[in-house]
Amino acid sequence: MAKVKKAPRPKAETPKGFRDYFGSDVSDRTEMLARIAEVYHRYGFDPLETSGVETVEALGKFLPDVDRPNEGVFAWELDDSGWVALRYDLTAPLARVYAQHRNDLPTPYRRYAMGPVWRNEKPGPGRFRQFYQCDADTVGAPSVAADAEICAMLSDTLEAVGIARGDYIVRVNNRKVLNGVLEVAGLSGDDKEAERGIVLRAIDKLDRLGPEGVRALLGAGRKDESGDFTKGAGLDDTQADVVMGFMSAGRETGAETVAALRDLAQGSDVGEKGVEELETIAALLDAQGYGPDRIVIDPSVVRGLGYYTGPVYEAELTFEIQDEKGRPRQFGSVAGGGRYDDLVKRFTGQEVPATGVSIGVDRLLAALRMKGQTSEVAEGPVVVTVMDRARMADYQAMVGELRQAGIRAEVYLGNPKNFGNQLKYADKRGSPIAVIQGADEAEAGKVQLKDLIQGARIAETATLEEWKDRPSQIEVARADLVAEVQAMRARQADG
Amino acid sequence: MAKVKKAPRPKAETPKGFRDYFGSDVSDRTEMLARIAEVYHRYGFDPLETSGVETVEALGKFLPDVDRPNEGVFAWELDDSGWVALRYDLTAPLARVYAQHRNDLPTPYRRYAMGPVWRNEKPGPGRFRQFYQCDADTVGAPSVAADAEICAMLSDTLEAVGIARGDYIVRVNNRKVLNGVLEVAGLSGDDKEAERGIVLRAIDKLDRLGPEGVRALLGAGRKDESGDFTKGAGLDDTQADVVMGFMSAGRETGAETVAALRDLAQGSDVGEKGVEELETIAALLDAQGYGPDRIVIDPSVVRGLGYYTGPVYEAELTFEIQDEKGRPRQFGSVAGGGRYDDLVKRFTGQEVPATGVSIGVDRLLAALRMKGQTSEVAEGPVVVTVMDRARMADYQAMVGELRQAGIRAEVYLGNPKNFGNQLKYADKRGSPIAVIQGADEAEAGKVQLKDLIQGARIAETATLEEWKDRPSQIEVARADLVAEVQAMRARQADG
Repeated sequence: MAKVKKAPRPKAETPKGFRDYFGSDVSDRTEMLARIAEVYHRYGFDPLETSGVETVEALGKFLPDVDRPNEGVFAWELDDSGWVALRYDLTAPLARVYAQHRNDLPTPYRRYAMGPVWRNEKPGPGRFRQFYQCDADTVGAPSVAADAEICAMLSDTLEAVGIARGDYIVRVNNRKVLNGVLEVAGLSGDDKEAERGIVLRAIDKLDRLGPEGVRALLGAGRKDESGDFTKGAGLDDTQADVVMGFMSAGRETGAETVAALRDLAQGSDVGEKGVEELETIAALLDAQGYGPDRIVIDPSVVRGLGYYTGPVYEAELTFEIQDEKGRPRQFGSVAGGGRYDDLVKRFTGQEVPATGVSIGVDRLLAALRMKGQTSEVAEGPVVVTVMDRARMADYQAMVGELRQAGIRAEVYLGNPKNFGNQLKYADKRGSPIAVIQGADEAEAGKVQLKDLIQGARIAETATLEEWKDRPSQIEVARADLVAEVQAMRARQADG
Repeated sequence: MAKVKKAPRPKAETPKGFRDYFGSDVSDRTEMLARIAEVYHRYGFDPLETSGVETVEALGKFLPDVDRPNEGVFAWELDDSGWVALRYDLTAPLARVYAQHRNDLPTPYRRYAMGPVWRNEKPGPGRFRQFYQCDADTVGAPSVAADAEICAMLSDTLEAVGIARGDYIVRVNNRKVLNGVLEVAGLSGDDKEAERGIVLRAIDKLDRLGPEGVRALLGAGRKDESGDFTKGAGLDDTQADVVMGFMSAGRETGAETVAALRDLAQGSDVGEKGVEELETIAALLDAQGYGPDRIVIDPSVVRGLGYYTGPVYEAELTFEIQDEKGRPRQFGSVAGGGRYDDLVKRFTGQEVPATGVSIGVDRLLAALRMKGQTSEVAEGPVVVTVMDRARMADYQAMVGELRQAGIRAEVYLGNPKNFGNQLKYADKRGSPIAVIQGADEAEAGKVQLKDLIQGARIAETATLEEWKDRPSQIEVARADLVAEVQAMRARQADG
């Protein structure tokens, strides 16, 4: 006889490349985003939360990284809406929303958005298929005053979440200047698009490859450590000199940098226009007191995205960390953005100027943790233990009083038989205080308060008797429970 | 010659059944959830944020509404993970997480979760395919003390977000009592599962159909207003009497209700066990001071979900609103939940007792708005207008000062040529004050402050000159900008 085969149990796993966030991973991020939202609000930006699902048609193909054209979206077909997909960023949905509601929205429209986005790319260490973005954009503002404003806001935002002045720098550049320099170098025209793309990506890799690596990519090409060859843009030495000169045009002051760029872009209309815009941005920021200790003009910033058309900017954290091999390096970029003028046009046919920034939420949170700017360990609850199952109502009354007083507190709700398990539980919860009341204490109108911060280390092995003997345990009147817990918490905070 | 056909422009629309949230829809919800999280945290619950995408295998088929078996999930296939789907609630992912991480998590595990869920159902008025849930669950606590705790927490939560005591009631029941009553009525046994399902759903419709409608569904069936016939459970009169008696067993006090239920369930082990649990819950809540003005035992609560195995509870808002036809009715349910013991077992083979509640975020927010408990109109920014494009840096400096002082402020970033457009913009933004500085004022070291709350109505038609003439506009020293804006805001708040 054939055996009846039982259906196998489902695997308790996320799909590959997805993850869960626990405890302080959630609450620290929530707090950080609340601080960011407070700054954005103060700058006049309004929140927008678009649906997670968009039509594939509305999303379009603006995936941010041209180096990985194979990355895609998660898409499926619906009977009543055709092909739909999870949003891969917060900018494409903004363009859709603005096109859809432009008659009801104020223009310019300043909006911020925070939420998950999804990318159907190969997962890897630290690379997930769902992650948070936090964006602020101004739609319908042609003036570079809008770009300057976002740079100032980015600076304020970093300080608001806890990055000290001096530990970050916001760098600004302008694609128009770069385009002008490329024009001067003889790389304008539709037939040179591929070369311009290679140059753009090469400059974007300056941090990683150094000037020589970039120079190689501007010329014939570059062989990396593994032996793989990347084809270069094929510029001759004179052309490459112009581009290299552009990247190193950064000077002490914004005015000097602008002067150097003006020389390099001379003869190109678009380049000169770009220099003028940078000059305006520098003047606007200066008027608001954002000096080079916070925001600088930096020609090496290009940002990878193909769709930027004017100013581009990024925020870098400059404090030192150690890389995987223990070598010191700067923490690096946590936010970036720029001006893009064509996203809304796809829908309406009219060009709508827009500029905006996206903060890498996970990276910024990681930086705050390194700087000790988050709670790190979530505050554990006071645990009221259960010595006598029949008196659960008494324990619930205690926990109720503590909660009413604003103290985070729990009664132990597992099987109370093994008291050691209750102590292990309190330990796992990071509990600062255990409340203990056996029959004797109950009769005498007393409770025991155990200082777990002092006693945490031995919690796993102690018997109830050893536990009671420790000096960190005190007996107090039941009527004083709340006051005594507050007093012990205060002593713990001092110690 | 054939014309070259241009690709049609994409439609700027969400897929059917999806929506966007603007401005205060987002910030009011964020604030409400923050208040809820504060209560949950105080009760010892930890946040958990699971990925939006799960394997179909892990999600299982626990769609909550057995009345609509065709509703489904949004699913697609991945090369490396098989079939995956967007989560349809926050409970199924909790079961997966607990099964996956049970050795690292504390037991009992109190967790809360807030976020969007997705349902592939036919969209309709007020029914969306993506919506928010806000859940709190305790996993691994067999004691009904865990259920009582969630009822108390639900009561505290409603008051914390702004629902006054007396405007809500938390009702508790126990599926075991109902099962006992069904046993007494002769409806136990595997062959009676269909009938039990009909009875359950009939009781759940008491509010809508009234006792007669329910009675009809317990018997032969019921024809609704449209003439459609719903088949009944086929109970005879004696059986139906038992069930109807159960539904109307609610009495003045919890003790009296429990006594009435004890009579009805007599002779059924599971029923008597259920009554005992209700008695314990009532005693625990009583010990913490949650009287019948906040939480009551109510036998008419059954909750539709098939998976509940013990206590069930729901929160109803009792204040009156008008329905679509202008008739008064109670606002109704905003949260519900209960005990379910089999969800984790799917993964591990071991039964893990769990209980939890889900708050209908959109409904609760709608209730708060009716009660005037939200900001309703988001605070608009002070708008610094641009009279002279060349002096943008001056205007930016003003707005910078206002922001540094914590005042929400913007400079107008659209084309400044038409001053009327700037006033329309300020109007659309709900701006309380416009700051105006032309060449004359600049030279004299002055600025004009326009009180837009007084003057909003004529903003769309006024010329600059009319505007300047209105008494709600005052001239102040440029150096006093921040102080004068603060003073005007204070006068506006008083008026």
